[in-house]
This record gives sequence, structure tokens and C-alpha cells, in this order.
Amino acid sequence: MALVKKNELIEKAKSARTASQFLSVQSSAEKDQALHAIAVQLHTDRNIIIEANRLDQERAKQNQMTPSLLDRLMLNEARIDAMAAAVETLAKLPDPIGDTLDQWDRPNGLHIQKIRVPIGVIGMVYEARPNVTIDAACLCLKTGNAVYLRGSASALETNKALVSTIKRALRQTNIPEEAVQLLEDTRHETANQFFRLNGMIDVLIPRGSSRLIQTVIKQASIPVIETGAGNCHVYIDESANPEMATRIVLNAKTQRPSVCNAIETVIVSRKWFDQFGDSLIDALLTAGVSCHIDPSAADKFPQLPTASEEDWATEYLDKIIAVKLVDTLQEAIDHINRYGTKHSESIISEDPAHVAAFFKAVDASTLYHNASTRFTDGEQFGFGAEIGISTQKLHARGPMGLNALTSIKYLIEGNGQIRE
Amino acid sequence: MALVKKNELIEKAKSARTASQFLSVQSSAEKDQALHAIAVQLHTDRNIIIEANRLDQERAKQNQMTPSLLDRLMLNEARIDAMAAAVETLAKLPDPIGDTLDQWDRPNGLHIQKIRVPIGVIGMVYEARPNVTIDAACLCLKTGNAVYLRGSASALETNKALVSTIKRALRQTNIPEEAVQLLEDTRHETANQFFRLNGMIDVLIPRGSSRLIQTVIKQASIPVIETGAGNCHVYIDESANPEMATRIVLNAKTQRPSVCNAIETVIVSRKWFDQFGDSLIDALLTAGVSCHIDPSAADKFPQLPTASEEDWATEYLDKIIAVKLVDTLQEAIDHINRYGTKHSESIISEDPAHVAAFFKAVDASTLYHNASTRFTDGEQFGFGAEIGISTQKLHARGPMGLNALTSIKYLIEGNGQIRE
Repeated sequence: MALVKKNELIEKAKSARTASQFLSVQSSAEKDQALHAIAVQLHTDRNIIIEANRLDQERAKQNQMTPSLLDRLMLNEARIDAMAAAVETLAKLPDPIGDTLDQWDRPNGLHIQKIRVPIGVIGMVYEARPNVTIDAACLCLKTGNAVYLRGSASALETNKALVSTIKRALRQTNIPEEAVQLLEDTRHETANQFFRLNGMIDVLIPRGSSRLIQTVIKQASIPVIETGAGNCHVYIDESANPEMATRIVLNAKTQRPSVCNAIETVIVSRKWFDQFGDSLIDALLTAGVSCHIDPSAADKFPQLPTASEEDWATEYLDKIIAVKLVDTLQEAIDHINRYGTKHSESIISEDPAHVAAFFKAVDASTLYHNASTRFTDGEQFGFGAEIGISTQKLHARGPMGLNALTSIKYLIEGNGQIRE
Repeated sequence: MALVKKNELIEKAKSARTASQFLSVQSSAEKDQALHAIAVQLHTDRNIIIEANRLDQERAKQNQMTPSLLDRLMLNEARIDAMAAAVETLAKLPDPIGDTLDQWDRPNGLHIQKIRVPIGVIGMVYEARPNVTIDAACLCLKTGNAVYLRGSASALETNKALVSTIKRALRQTNIPEEAVQLLEDTRHETANQFFRLNGMIDVLIPRGSSRLIQTVIKQASIPVIETGAGNCHVYIDESANPEMATRIVLNAKTQRPSVCNAIETVIVSRKWFDQFGDSLIDALLTAGVSCHIDPSAADKFPQLPTASEEDWATEYLDKIIAVKLVDTLQEAIDHINRYGTKHSESIISEDPAHVAAFFKAVDASTLYHNASTRFTDGEQFGFGAEIGISTQKLHARGPMGLNALTSIKYLIEGNGQIRE
């Protein structure tokens, strides 16, 4: 059996590689037609998919999966329709492949052109979220990449059904069905081999818990795009408009506390806090947010738990906020650069010099002035689609749209040039 | 001792990180002044550096280092002057940091700006080439990055002297000397820890042998930019001008056989070969190149060794060439995509349709029409400086200039926007 499984791992990778070479030269029309076929097939296969999902759900309940994870795993007609609609939207986006990004002439007469090309084979590693199966496969197809999916064991039946649907659809088009592969062997040791298929997979994109992402980073020899962790802050400057500051903090904390671009700590200028702190804390408590208060203000708020060093480093992903007081802008910047995860950081201020200093010195993918951190998102940026939010600095940083799934190549025209 | 060494590894990384935050906000003028100071100090310290290099050379001779490696290790007055001149040239290049790469408005009034920023801390891993010490440190300083150098044990004295020179120079400027760190503990187990300093080093750039690069890729958990290996081809199409084809093949093979953008195999259309093959082989043999001939032409060239499967995959880095015959363009493309290392590939042809098909289907960083592959180089591209040639598809592909040492951040201006 082990031998068969090993064969699955490698054979599917090879098959994806071959398909990727074919896919890389297909026209936008061919790729968009494939996406349309997938959307239609999702409607056709709705009952088959829901039935497969029911098996996963039953097993998950037996394994005591938490209600929130069970909800993420669950597919119903409405969710499948939403998936199909997203695929149709994706088909309508412009195709970045083949775009000329730059071109120039050299003194020796060579003409250099830099164009956008697919990456090749993308390895997606994710948890029990079946929507990622369709999302990732379709984003990869749109950009001329083959995809090798490694989902969670707890969603295996659903993923098998979804990938069968994709393959049924592709068989009606010119895109080879081998362009989408699902690793059905979900053992951890096989995953560790998957992460080291250099030469067969060009990049790994892990999506899910911080634990999953760190495992991939530690184990992989293939390049990884790190996504995810968000210990984000709003800094309320001395000059901040109190109504705006409170509104933004509430939005950034409570509009959807479980996501990476929600904030975990509000950093407040002590002068501002002396005047408006009571009403900020009141507003947070009224909104059901538990406040962990800076030790220096603990006397003033004896009813609140005191924040510790650990709070500054914690991504609560819940209706909890840490409140940090600072005397200077520099102190706020230092706190963010020390504890932040370089995701999204906002300054609320009416002082242009402070905003400029914050924009210059804070090291994060996305910095805001007088706006909520919740806008760090491919759709909110206007990218039309998102494969994840990169928290690393190489290749892609911040929300990743279709361009993040592309590479470049140089095409050089000569008339006999040799190097002297 | 192990404890002390461990402290060196971590303390220098932390110190580089702190310096990188300071360095990231320095002006172009401050950084260029530091580069100028380094160039001047290299002249001042010439004798100290040569003396240190003499110690490394003596040890290397005792260890039976090969003459070509000894030559790479050796520093003399001329070579130090060349280093200093390169640093002055670098200082004069435009600074990419702070450039606005894109900006747009969203319907909700948010204004998004995408700007270029330093990466942070760059980890350079390299062999006994002391010029890399100065090159890498200065390219990193120019782009606002701190650098953590891990050179070879056999160049340790030279590297210590060069880094002391850099630090002496930086002390006269506003750039902190901690921005350039040299790991003096050159044990392999320490290198393996170095490769896994996530959060302290942002990217590793290995430069040197394929063995070194593969070790870093296998061991590292930090993102790596893969450089180096080049199994490159010239394809002579049926329609190729025979004089041009021969001239380009000779240049690509013999102008400098030991470098990655030299070719290893010439792929020839059988029709062209029937007419011009004899004179191509003659020209190569006359230039001192040993030809390993396609088995299908072995009868015609009984004096030549026959090429085997292994030849197609070999990067000779020497005056040896494999000659592969094909019946069709597609066969040539398939051969390159199978055996090539995605570095540089050239087609010699007078047929625009064949050129277009080659440009579309061959997967490599740089494709040429009627030119030698030897132009894949930062200087030849007009980048002014080069940190290496990337053979991977993420972040940077092909020759890497200053831009390859940068990341981006988004700056977003609002007036109270929250997400509904």
C-alpha cells in the first residue's frame, strides 16, 4: 500500500507538471471557457457534492469537531451556488498572462522585453475548507498554472467530489484535466514528502491556522508564500478625532474578530486617553469587547484585567482587545515593530508629520491613515480575486491577486549579437 | 565555547535586525555617502586586507585547494582597487527605495499607494570569493537592507578584514556599523542554524556551487532565492543563417565556458545539420571544444564520442558540448523543457513563426532570438549591478539588480472609512 501511495504522490506531480506546460500556452478564451464549464458543472453536480460532504460531516461530528470548524466544512446548495458565482466572476477578470511589463533597447541593439508568465505548478496546503478547493483550482487555471491540492483528511470526501466535478468540466474543454490534482493520501508523512517535491512543484501556498503555516515553513524545501498571522494595531495619536478614532477601533475589532486583518491591540497616546479614554473603553465594553488595560492605567480601571507582556504578542481572534498607552509616537512605532506581525497597522491622526513618520517607520504590508485595518483584502483593494494575504516580503506582500500567481520571463531579440 | 558561538549567531542577527530598522529610513544621500566611505577605506586598508588574505592563501595551499579556487580567493592591489571602483559605481546608481510603483482610488474614497521598501535583513551564503563580501554588503546597504554574511572558512581572515574595513568606514557615517555582520563561526552545524533564523533573517541568497545552493535549499526554513545552475542550449532552426548560427554557438560555448550562461548542448535541425553540420563541428573542434555527438549521427562522425542520456543533463562548465539532432521545432522545445535548468535558451532562425512558438513554449528566465546566451547578466541587461541570477520563478527571475533586494508596502489614506 505504501508503494501505491508513494506512486500517487509522484505520479500526480509529474502529471501536473506536464499539464502545466500545455496550460501555459493556452489562450485567455480557452481558460475562461474552462472556468465557465466548472461553474456549470458545480450546479449540475450539486447533490453529489452535498452527499459527499455529508459523509465528511458525519465523521467530523464523531471526531468531536468544534461547531465553528463544522460550519466551515459544511456545504449546502447556497454555498455551492456562491462558489459557482465566484468562478463566473473570476472568468470575467482580465488575464495577466502575456502582459508586457517593461521593454528597452541596449546599446548593442538587443531589444529586451519582460513579460508575465505562469509560475508552473502551485501546491496548495489547506484545512477543512472545501471552498479553497474550488477557489485555488480556478485561480490557478485562470493564470495558466496547474495546481496540486493537499487538503485536510476531514474534508477528503468533499474534496474528491469537487475535484471530480472540475475534471468532468475540463473534459468538455481544451484544458487537460490533469491540470488539477488532489493528493488523496492525507497522512502527515506523505505531506512532508509533498513539501519537498522540488522541481515538480514550484511554490507552496499554505492557507489555514498559524500551526499549519509554520509546519509547512519548517518542513518545506520548495519556496513557500507565508500567509496569515495578523497581530494588527490601531494607534490613536494625540491629535486624533475622538469620534473617528472610536468608530475605527470598534470596526477594526468587532466587525469580524476572527479574521487576520482585525486588530488585537489599540495603542493610545496618553494625552488623548486622559481626555477620551473613558468613552473609548465604554464604547468597547458596550460592544461586548473585553479590554485588557495597560498596567499604567490599571488603577483607573480596577474592574478590567491588566494586560501583560503576553497580551501584546497575542492574536486573540476574538472579542478581546489589549489597550496600550504611550507617551510618544516613537513608542507606538517601536511597540508595533516589536510585537506586530507586519500585516496591517493604522494611525488615527490629524497631524501630517506624525502620519508621515508612521508610514515611513512601521514595517508592515499595509499601513492606514484614518481608516480601519479591515480593508486589507484582495476584493477591497480592487484585485477582483484573492489567493491569500502574504505576510512575508518576497514575491508578494499583502493581499495577493492574480498577479501573485505569475512569474516573468525575458524575451530578447537580436540580429547575431555575441558577447565580446 | 558552543554557548559563546550560539550567542554570536543570535546576537549578530538581532543586531542586524535593529540596524535594518534604522537603515530602512535613511536617505539615499546617507547611504551613498556610506558607500563612498567604504570605497575610500578599502584603499586605506589595502595592506591590512592583503596581509589577511595571505594567511587564508597559505592555509588553502596547505589544504591542497585547486589553482582555480586559489585564484578566486586571492586579493591583490588591483583586485581591491576594482572592488572599490565597483562600490563607487554602485553609489552613483539611482536608489529604488521609496519609488511609487502604482497608486489608485477605491470607490469608498480610500487612496492606495504601492511603494518600494527594503526587505530587511539579507543572509548571504557563499564560498571562498572575497569580492562577494564587498559586493553583497554594498548592494544591501544601497537598498536599505542589513546583511548577515556567512562566507567560507577558507576565506575567514580575508572576510574579517573586509568587514572590519566596512565597519571602520561606517563609523564615519550615519549608517550603523551593525548593518553589516559576519558570522565568524563557520562550522556546518552553525550554518544549519543560520538557515533557520526565521524572523531574524528575511531571505537567504546562496552564491556558489550547485552543491552549496542545494544544501541551503534543503536545510533552510527562511525563504531562499535560488541562483546558479545553467544547462543552457542554442537551437539552430532549419532556417538559421549558417554563419550567424556558428558564430553564436562558438561564443556561447567558448567565450567563458565556466559560467552559468554558457551553453552545454547545441540542438540542431537535422535538415540544417545535413547541409552545415560538418562545418559547425569543424569550427567547434578548431576552437578546442570536444563534441559529444547525437547517436543518430555517430556513424558520420566516428572520431567523436557519442552523447548519452547523461550528456543531455550535464552542465559541463568546460570546453565540451553535446550535439543533439531533432526533426522538428517541437522536439527541440521538449528537449529543452525536459533537460534545461530554466536559465537561458536561444533560437537561431529566420522563421518568425518558429521564433514565436519557441518564445511561447520554452520555460526559462531568458529566451534569445539570434543572439548568444552570454548576455544573461545584470550589467548586460543595463541593471548597473547584479546580486546573482535567479533560476527560480518567485520574487525574482533572471539577472537580479537592485530591485530584487526590495519589497513593497501599501500606504492607504482615508478619512474615517470603516468596513460595512
